[in-house]
Amino acid sequence: SVLQDLDLELLKAVMGQLDARKIRESLWELSRQPHLASSPRDEALVQLLLSRWRDSESGLDSAERTEYEVLLSFPSQEQPNLVEVVGPTGDILHTYHPNEENVTGEQGGPDVVQPYAAYAPPGTPQGLLVYAYQGKEEDFRELQEQGINLEGTIALTRYGGAGRGDKAVNAAKYGVAGVLVYTDPMDVNDGQSLPSQTFPNSWGLPPSGVERGSYYKYFGDPVTPYLPAHHSSFRVDHSNASGFPPIPAQPIGFQDAKDLLCNLNGTLAPSAWQGALGCEYRLGPGFRSSGSLPDGSQVKMSVYNRLELRNSSNVLGIIRGAVEPDRYVLYGNHRDSWIHGAVDPSSGTAVLLEISRVLGTLLKKGTWRPRRSIVFASWGAEEFGLIGSTEFTEEFFSKLQERTVAYINVDVAVMANATLRVLGTPPVQSVVFSATKEIDSPGPSGLSIYDNWKRHFNRSSPVYGTVPSLGSLGAGSDYAPFIHFLGISSVDMTYTYDRSKTSARIYPTYHTAFDTFDYMEKFLDPGFSSHQAVAQTAGNVLLRLSDSLFLPLNVSDYSEVLHSFLRAAQQELGNLLQQHNISLGPLVTAVEKFAVAASALDQHVSAQRKGSPDPLQVRMFNDQLMLLERAFLNSRAFPEERYYSHVLWAPHSSSVATFPGLANAYYRAKDTDAGSEAWAEVQRQLSIVVAALEGATATLRPVAEL
Amino acid sequence: SVLQDLDLELLKAVMGQLDARKIRESLWELSRQPHLASSPRDEALVQLLLSRWRDSESGLDSAERTEYEVLLSFPSQEQPNLVEVVGPTGDILHTYHPNEENVTGEQGGPDVVQPYAAYAPPGTPQGLLVYAYQGKEEDFRELQEQGINLEGTIALTRYGGAGRGDKAVNAAKYGVAGVLVYTDPMDVNDGQSLPSQTFPNSWGLPPSGVERGSYYKYFGDPVTPYLPAHHSSFRVDHSNASGFPPIPAQPIGFQDAKDLLCNLNGTLAPSAWQGALGCEYRLGPGFRSSGSLPDGSQVKMSVYNRLELRNSSNVLGIIRGAVEPDRYVLYGNHRDSWIHGAVDPSSGTAVLLEISRVLGTLLKKGTWRPRRSIVFASWGAEEFGLIGSTEFTEEFFSKLQERTVAYINVDVAVMANATLRVLGTPPVQSVVFSATKEIDSPGPSGLSIYDNWKRHFNRSSPVYGTVPSLGSLGAGSDYAPFIHFLGISSVDMTYTYDRSKTSARIYPTYHTAFDTFDYMEKFLDPGFSSHQAVAQTAGNVLLRLSDSLFLPLNVSDYSEVLHSFLRAAQQELGNLLQQHNISLGPLVTAVEKFAVAASALDQHVSAQRKGSPDPLQVRMFNDQLMLLERAFLNSRAFPEERYYSHVLWAPHSSSVATFPGLANAYYRAKDTDAGSEAWAEVQRQLSIVVAALEGATATLRPVAEL
Ligand SMILES: [Ca+2]
Ligand SMILES: [Ca+2]
Ligand SMILES: [Zn+2]
Ligand SMILES: [Zn+2]
Ligand SMILES: [Zn+2]
Ligand SMILES: [Zn+2]
Repeated sequence: SVLQDLDLELLKAVMGQLDARKIRESLWELSRQPHLASSPRDEALVQLLLSRWRDSESGLDSAERTEYEVLLSFPSQEQPNLVEVVGPTGDILHTYHPNEENVTGEQGGPDVVQPYAAYAPPGTPQGLLVYAYQGKEEDFRELQEQGINLEGTIALTRYGGAGRGDKAVNAAKYGVAGVLVYTDPMDVNDGQSLPSQTFPNSWGLPPSGVERGSYYKYFGDPVTPYLPAHHSSFRVDHSNASGFPPIPAQPIGFQDAKDLLCNLNGTLAPSAWQGALGCEYRLGPGFRSSGSLPDGSQVKMSVYNRLELRNSSNVLGIIRGAVEPDRYVLYGNHRDSWIHGAVDPSSGTAVLLEISRVLGTLLKKGTWRPRRSIVFASWGAEEFGLIGSTEFTEEFFSKLQERTVAYINVDVAVMANATLRVLGTPPVQSVVFSATKEIDSPGPSGLSIYDNWKRHFNRSSPVYGTVPSLGSLGAGSDYAPFIHFLGISSVDMTYTYDRSKTSARIYPTYHTAFDTFDYMEKFLDPGFSSHQAVAQTAGNVLLRLSDSLFLPLNVSDYSEVLHSFLRAAQQELGNLLQQHNISLGPLVTAVEKFAVAASALDQHVSAQRKGSPDPLQVRMFNDQLMLLERAFLNSRAFPEERYYSHVLWAPHSSSVATFPGLANAYYRAKDTDAGSEAWAEVQRQLSIVVAALEGATATLRPVAEL
Repeated sequence: SVLQDLDLELLKAVMGQLDARKIRESLWELSRQPHLASSPRDEALVQLLLSRWRDSESGLDSAERTEYEVLLSFPSQEQPNLVEVVGPTGDILHTYHPNEENVTGEQGGPDVVQPYAAYAPPGTPQGLLVYAYQGKEEDFRELQEQGINLEGTIALTRYGGAGRGDKAVNAAKYGVAGVLVYTDPMDVNDGQSLPSQTFPNSWGLPPSGVERGSYYKYFGDPVTPYLPAHHSSFRVDHSNASGFPPIPAQPIGFQDAKDLLCNLNGTLAPSAWQGALGCEYRLGPGFRSSGSLPDGSQVKMSVYNRLELRNSSNVLGIIRGAVEPDRYVLYGNHRDSWIHGAVDPSSGTAVLLEISRVLGTLLKKGTWRPRRSIVFASWGAEEFGLIGSTEFTEEFFSKLQERTVAYINVDVAVMANATLRVLGTPPVQSVVFSATKEIDSPGPSGLSIYDNWKRHFNRSSPVYGTVPSLGSLGAGSDYAPFIHFLGISSVDMTYTYDRSKTSARIYPTYHTAFDTFDYMEKFLDPGFSSHQAVAQTAGNVLLRLSDSLFLPLNVSDYSEVLHSFLRAAQQELGNLLQQHNISLGPLVTAVEKFAVAASALDQHVSAQRKGSPDPLQVRMFNDQLMLLERAFLNSRAFPEERYYSHVLWAPHSSSVATFPGLANAYYRAKDTDAGSEAWAEVQRQLSIVVAALEGATATLRPVAEL
């Protein structure tokens, strides 16, 4: 029927059929071997997904792979990257571990890619070592202000505080020749660093563990920006490609970092820069004579990374909508891992497979077909920079923009078992709330996921009182091209740890060879009940989006964010703006008008919901709800920020949660003269956001008004 | 009913009610006084439109004005622009006519704006005169090759061959200090130049007639690119605004041009450069001693144009759709004229008012309400560069892109009474054919508009045989922002002259003070039957678009254009591309796949049409048809071409009708080395168009396939 609506009984049945044991089985299969992007095992998993989604009893309507030819970066098999200490006479005094220790038998073998900084250029820089904390711009400035000559040095930095690639970019600005990056036990292990305190004895990162990762600045295939990376596509010459680290970089474990850092000479590092390696951190340059490394020794990095064009595939599976097949609810996760990737991304893939299994089974039985189409996606090469998902958005730009209701991302489904954590844009808040209120949280608390979540992450909403707080979407996983490039309302969810119990910046074995099935089963989610909870939550959100007659997107929840951005702008930027004759008045008006139109639309929708709506009427309201997010796009607002077009969620450098373009321009102008071009740019960015809000408001008004 | 479809009886009734006399009355009122953009009479016409559209018996559902603050350019009231001859001793020997001759009593008075080149900068250049034909790049090159030193000269050019502003841009590149532009009687009067042969004795341009016009390079308000020109909007500093002519320019009549040109010294101009002024055209520089102007005399231009921020309004009137109010059929024309503007634009406005009167009457009677919403628009400040329409598209970018079915533009409704002439994109071809086949052409021929049109403009279609040919949409009127910036299928129509009977490049009094009601009534359309024919045609197209259950947009008509662009690329560019290892193979495949998908969709639609369609099914098909044009947009394809995003219709410099980005890049690269960046750009542009075609094809495929 054209009025087909969400069936609560069916929803309940689906919730009951999502099976922790099945998730466990899938996870075991997905993570039993390393499956680096474009590796043979990655291809085997493509086949696994295709066969699951083509299964005659639990498959979808159709499943396809789409292949792109993309530029990846790998260490050399023949010449491993090395970090060495070179004595004053040029002798190699010490060579650090090129690989992680084979603690459980899964950290060795040809498929375990050596720790490396993907896209860092090859090179063999050698110089005195300095300690540059997190490698932020200000960290290097601090060293310079301490009188340290950074020219030609090797900078030891630690993960956190700045993006991976940023550390190298910042370092190069100060003349640093190479960057080492380690994980401080303080940052992931709550200070624990002994083998007895770490995996396989706890969830802690072992001393030899090394976080791999992409050091590329943008996302998407680096040589086909804005074009799908088909074989015949135009490619930027590799030497012209921008966004790669300017100098060699290499990640190392804290065992090796300790040997370097605890031998450094120079002034004591600031207290915030200290860590848990069991020594006083000094700044360098070079090693102190009283240490175990000879005074005058240098550090030599040998990086042999290579860029390679490789085939990488997405797998897509579709359930055709019964009533509105041209409306898509997308649900995706990447498939590629650095090594076994039991947590990242296979926990998410196992959940994806479980949801698709349950829905596929109902579909094949003829019990159910969603109102709208559901598209499941397994993205390739996410770890290198969200490549598969980005190429997909490039290839199907128009179609996806026109038809996609929302994108749901579950990458790491479970990194611990304490609470749900959600990132998303305001229109999805209400549907996530509805779903989580219905589902029991794992463990004995007896709380709903919603109430448990609210205990861990909450905020005070002027509209709703205390509610769980959704974080905002950065570029941490495959939702980035959907929200930033296409303007599709997106949500990302994961089960995570209790931040009052650990200060870990991420789960400890993130991007290491210790992220294995056993690690998951022993330390993160023994009974797979958190997996089940995430499957229920994501599945519930998915079904509400695919099956509800009226889209469960609440547009007036954007008003709250706009008001808070506005207040922040007034409080933090207002005075100086006024001094430069830039009035926030038009922005105040625009926010107010938006709020009025959004609330009127929500009320119209509520009223319709109670009446006997005609299907075209519903479609019209739904289009307004679906397309609101699109109205915040301006492809010309931030030309230097590749793909970022959403004027509310583009990156900004300040910590003030406000309109990003305005804030960026403001902080760039802050120290320049009135009347300068920098202040004109502030005014321009203000007009851009006002125009976007007014344009968005126009889409919310009754459709036959201007 | 949700299945409400086009009512052919009603359509016929509307055709019958469109009344030539009413159009005549409206035209009289609209054109009886000059109504330059932002003038008091322009405002009076805003009120006239509002009152017509708010009339209780023949008005629309609602009508509003929206005001923008835009940068216009005017001559000084106090200091008229002058062109003078300065003798060798510095005396002013002669001053040319600052104004047109008051032939009918309507060419005088304070509201008749002096002939000028809008946006040309003020200045008083003085130098030897040269004749530079049409002011094309190659024309100045020719003068240089003739050994003429152009530095500091005044170049006399004539209208045609290059855009107004381009003449000044090209001139400035060669050091020319000022540009005069005249209309040669050969180009508009078929050579006739005597007062007895011209208006008020014929439709010919009188000797004192001067074509005004905008010399601005882009369109839209010059200081608010991509932002609506609200009062509070950011504005580019006038001195930083780009696109204004770099040197002073002034248009003159052929009477004055004759005095200058027939006295020139130097070599005889090439035969193609000769004209109908009754003398041999020479190149200069300077005047010959045997003429009536002293040898050594110079020409002095005094240009006192000023930029002014002015308020300009659009007027919008809406008929709410009964079934799909969120689908808009837009119909518009500009309101502002240079002087009386009986032809341009008031003939179009009179037609607009007649269509809205007839439909408004049916609406108010309760006889009829369209399936979709109809939006009538009267744009402001078109003559200065499509400003009102462009600001409108900037303000309502998202809403219009999401919801607009098509844009119909009727600017000059009638410039002669011989035949219809249509510009448009392929999807509208079929609906224009359907409409024109039903309507009788004016005059005694007994032919339908379609058959008469086919006699004048035709082509041989591989699909349909001989059919009338639609021209492609440039930037000649307000359709430009709709097709190029928003990707909305657009059509522009006018009744025009027989090109076998006159070689006029435009109707002779275009943009002069002789474009009056009497001129129209006496020489162009005495019985207003051509006006009526255009009203019937445009009204018929409008109703088919607003009322048909299935949108009468034919997507497979795009295949024909793509095939022809492809053939042209293969024939004209193929060899050299191959030499540079650039294969057109992917383009061939992309065109082929498009054709297959488009034809399959058209067949699905035809099949549905015969069955008993469900309203959501229809809506889905219609969305595919409506949104196809959008899929050809790429806002990053031509960053230097402001607003141009449509990869098939962007401007290109070559005369080969092919993919514009590809052609532009090709001709730029043609003379450079293989492996150069210019050839890389050719490959990039090829990939851009391939990606656009593939993206468009994806939107045409069955909606639940990938
Ligand atoms: Ca790409
Ligand atoms: Ca503007
Ligand atoms: Zn991940
Ligand atoms: Zn990861
Ligand atoms: Zn016009
Ligand atoms: Zn005009």
